[in-house]
Amino acid sequence: MYPKSIQRVIDLLMKLPGVGPRQAARFAFFMLKENHGFAEELAAGLKDMQANIVTCGQCYRTMEKNPEQEITHCTLCRDARRNETVITVVEKESDLQNLERTGAYTGLYHVLGGVISPLDSESPKRLHIREMYNRVAVLLNQQKQVELILGTNPTTEGDMTALYIERTFAPLKEKTQNFKYSRLGRGLSLGAELEYADEVTLKNALMNRK
Amino acid sequence: MYPKSIQRVIDLLMKLPGVGPRQAARFAFFMLKENHGFAEELAAGLKDMQANIVTCGQCYRTMEKNPEQEITHCTLCRDARRNETVITVVEKESDLQNLERTGAYTGLYHVLGGVISPLDSESPKRLHIREMYNRVAVLLNQQKQVELILGTNPTTEGDMTALYIERTFAPLKEKTQNFKYSRLGRGLSLGAELEYADEVTLKNALMNRK
Repeated sequence: MYPKSIQRVIDLLMKLPGVGPRQAARFAFFMLKENHGFAEELAAGLKDMQANIVTCGQCYRTMEKNPEQEITHCTLCRDARRNETVITVVEKESDLQNLERTGAYTGLYHVLGGVISPLDSESPKRLHIREMYNRVAVLLNQQKQVELILGTNPTTEGDMTALYIERTFAPLKEKTQNFKYSRLGRGLSLGAELEYADEVTLKNALMNRK
Repeated sequence: MYPKSIQRVIDLLMKLPGVGPRQAARFAFFMLKENHGFAEELAAGLKDMQANIVTCGQCYRTMEKNPEQEITHCTLCRDARRNETVITVVEKESDLQNLERTGAYTGLYHVLGGVISPLDSESPKRLHIREMYNRVAVLLNQQKQVELILGTNPTTEGDMTALYIERTFAPLKEKTQNFKYSRLGRGLSLGAELEYADEVTLKNALMNRK
């Protein structure tokens, strides 16, 4: 129903996570009305982002490419004050950012780049699990105590991914006492009301009482 | 906290209507991960849209520019089966599309391109109200009966805009019996529950009972 140049942009925007046809149309008309400025800036920004962003060779977080020197690790991984033997595994970088914002964490991270999908048997290969295994193995070879904190989301896919990681690391755990893993604590969120909490959350809150 | 090439895209995406920092970050990382394909297609689509889309000279709906012939009116305005003397005034084109989808309307439209903002005294000038006035005046000069249906949203701004339009047309209405205007009926939405309906909606439903 919309002119085809607009429909094309709408169809593309509908691919964005969580965006339906109506929101995509709203975005497209906004971009159209913002007269050249916005669309051109966005196009340039996207191009720039594709060209300049690389991922850290250790934690797979994104970082700016450095044209002068060959830097392969991100600022966090290069920070000597961070504890390299505590590694929190997160699904995506925004989870990492939110944990960093707490200021309560001094370890490092490992960004999986997604979750395991029950319908896609190839999905474990796309996550950086093999690299994480090697990273931990290297630390253990140096006789270090390593803790892996599984920080995937408390969703079906997140839990499945955590389980998959646990299984992957099981042989390593059998071989040494220096390796342990844990999951982020579960319970009531700040401001949540008992009356409306779901059963699983309540059960977790009971089990994790202190 | 994010690398600056990514932050730049996030800042741009946050300008989209209803998009906050977290959703913008989600979009940016999606675009980054979709490796070239998506970002480049979107950039090309935006450029194409800016170059090829013009607005109808009568109803201000968007339409594809036609390189071969000089067409100034959209397909609806050129459709002889539509009643040109019934004009529904809408805020934006997606409202028009939704009305069209009902299949129950055979008149034409007038797209305002926004609403009057109480904080911006310049906003009435940016809407196509003057052009609508001229459009109606021409029809009245041809001794036609004209009906204007005010189809702005039932929000504060929408009602304010409708009121502004009524005031603009008041002199015209005094001069002739051939001109009338109406507002879209108000009442309960399909599937709404009386128990949860707000007072204004219930009052409207009572007044518009039949």
